[in-house]
Amino acid sequence: MPEQIDPWKNFDVKDYDGICKQFGIEKFPYKEMKNAPVFMRRGLVFGSRDFSSILKCIKNKEKFVMLTGLMPSGKFHIGHKMVADQIVYYQSIGAEVYLLVADIEAYNMRDKSLEELKKIAVEEYLINYIALGLDLKKCDFYFQSGRSSDAKKSNAYYRLIGQIARKVTANEFKAIYGDLHPGKMISSFTEVADILHPQLPEFGGPKPVLVPVGIDQDPHIKLARDVAARMKEFNFIPPSSTYHKFMKGLSGGKMSSSDPYSYIALTDTPEEVKHKIFKYAFSGGQDTVEKHRKLGGNPDVDVAFQMLYYMFEPDDKKIEKIREEYKTGKLLTGELKQVAVEKIISFLKDHQKKREQARKQVIKFWNKSA
Amino acid sequence: MPEQIDPWKNFDVKDYDGICKQFGIEKFPYKEMKNAPVFMRRGLVFGSRDFSSILKCIKNKEKFVMLTGLMPSGKFHIGHKMVADQIVYYQSIGAEVYLLVADIEAYNMRDKSLEELKKIAVEEYLINYIALGLDLKKCDFYFQSGRSSDAKKSNAYYRLIGQIARKVTANEFKAIYGDLHPGKMISSFTEVADILHPQLPEFGGPKPVLVPVGIDQDPHIKLARDVAARMKEFNFIPPSSTYHKFMKGLSGGKMSSSDPYSYIALTDTPEEVKHKIFKYAFSGGQDTVEKHRKLGGNPDVDVAFQMLYYMFEPDDKKIEKIREEYKTGKLLTGELKQVAVEKIISFLKDHQKKREQARKQVIKFWNKSA
Repeated sequence: MPEQIDPWKNFDVKDYDGICKQFGIEKFPYKEMKNAPVFMRRGLVFGSRDFSSILKCIKNKEKFVMLTGLMPSGKFHIGHKMVADQIVYYQSIGAEVYLLVADIEAYNMRDKSLEELKKIAVEEYLINYIALGLDLKKCDFYFQSGRSSDAKKSNAYYRLIGQIARKVTANEFKAIYGDLHPGKMISSFTEVADILHPQLPEFGGPKPVLVPVGIDQDPHIKLARDVAARMKEFNFIPPSSTYHKFMKGLSGGKMSSSDPYSYIALTDTPEEVKHKIFKYAFSGGQDTVEKHRKLGGNPDVDVAFQMLYYMFEPDDKKIEKIREEYKTGKLLTGELKQVAVEKIISFLKDHQKKREQARKQVIKFWNKSA
Repeated sequence: MPEQIDPWKNFDVKDYDGICKQFGIEKFPYKEMKNAPVFMRRGLVFGSRDFSSILKCIKNKEKFVMLTGLMPSGKFHIGHKMVADQIVYYQSIGAEVYLLVADIEAYNMRDKSLEELKKIAVEEYLINYIALGLDLKKCDFYFQSGRSSDAKKSNAYYRLIGQIARKVTANEFKAIYGDLHPGKMISSFTEVADILHPQLPEFGGPKPVLVPVGIDQDPHIKLARDVAARMKEFNFIPPSSTYHKFMKGLSGGKMSSSDPYSYIALTDTPEEVKHKIFKYAFSGGQDTVEKHRKLGGNPDVDVAFQMLYYMFEPDDKKIEKIREEYKTGKLLTGELKQVAVEKIISFLKDHQKKREQARKQVIKFWNKSA
């Protein structure tokens, strides 16, 4: 287990319970979440910090913010959908959504211009968020490189980055992030400012803020919580967070935007879905039909099963039946994959129609903000 | 001689010619400057980088920017006046003046809130700049903590800070500034953004920019020039700079805002001026009148003489007469100090009247920007 987490390195977690203990992360109280997305009640969201203050807001219909960021890189895939579903869910239960494009971070890490990054963010990501149910009108969507068209808000946000820098020492930064690269430092302080700024006077003052992240982003969360406590002048409430596991890539490894055969994109055609699942999806089944009938498959490592379990088969009875039949060898690998393919194609057909409607909204947004 | 210059440490220069050679600084062509302030033609401005492009703009009446910053700390004194006189001079010969308040830098170095720093900047500094001749209407006066009331301009300025961070490595930063403190890093990149941002498209595109500084600020200039060359996308012209010596403090050491007996403030009363000059101003005269008559005084180390030479006696014949008479012992220390006191009191009387008029303009500005 690592001594520290580097948010800029791939981080393959094997032991989530161990991670929770080591880093002081609490369990995520998924039973309290009504009408939650299927992956949430099935354990993909496993941990949290200070989630009780968010639960209280939900129960009492009090104001809270849900903030999340997107890194504009490559195709929008079902790993991104899992994050988008959380945004849509929290918006539906009363959260004010802050949705940021980490274009300064992307700019500092990758070889793309801010203009290109903006285009990817809007055309690739935003269009899919809307098609997945995001209400853009109730959402504060912004770019790190240009916070707001209201100068008072923009100035307050960027000012906060400088104020945060005063509260962090070089040694502390190094202990958290491993080194002191200038671009990384600006990115981190910008992330921390993203997390804290909804509580600035210019944004309505102190309020609970929830940030759902992968475990690799926990360093930003911890730094934001520490800095919040040090900035007495603002009365910041320490931000809350939830932690989700990542959807596995098709081959069982990491789902990566740079490898199209590691994911199903939300723009994939039925043929591509079929091809990717049958050819690349890691199987928990046996080598031969005979062996499979006799020994059964392992749904826990089977990527097609995982996709059904966490995303495409919300019916608890049906998914347990599939699990049973696969484990006992009644359901063959090819048959399991066929079930997944049909579910995914059916979802994508509907989604791609919604994308066309979303495109109109996005074009309007793009013209307004360009 | 130091291997590198730390802009955050006091830096006492003994050998200006050596510094110029070591750091590749050219002589300042003071003879080309018509109607220049007295200290400029008498050598207080000693060096420059790329000043020929500024001279060309002056001669051809082409657009150029003069940018300088103020650090809001304590009373406005005659050391600050020397900088203010340069601003007013360059404005009078056609420069578009950018005047920034380094409040993020001050905030990261000192124990004051941004609100307090803003108050000092406006009430202590701006009021004196205007009384000294600054035309506020032709000046872009801004705070690092809130660049503009135009969000497009603000966003572009703050975006540039993040873009600059990508162009600088940790090793390079350490080589220039000695360490990697996060607050210092944000301050430096903000300084570099200050110097470069007048050339952004949102501010009218590439143009020559002149930054008059003390030698201690040269690291920011060099970094800005290096980074400008690396940011191909903006076609930045490498910024130009001039270097001035500092006015000596009353006791012959550094003039320091934190020691009221090291300076004459522009709000000092005639009694304070008399008291400070007679009691604290370092004298180049001899211990006794007899010795002084015989051996004469040393004007080069005499603070009262330096004040007359660089600021309060612009008449070349008169100042040379004073120098001669002091060197030969004809003019006594007390007499020399009396000449300085009278000149300073006369200047301050006039200046303090102008301050009252300036106050009205500043109140208007304060209300508009608050």
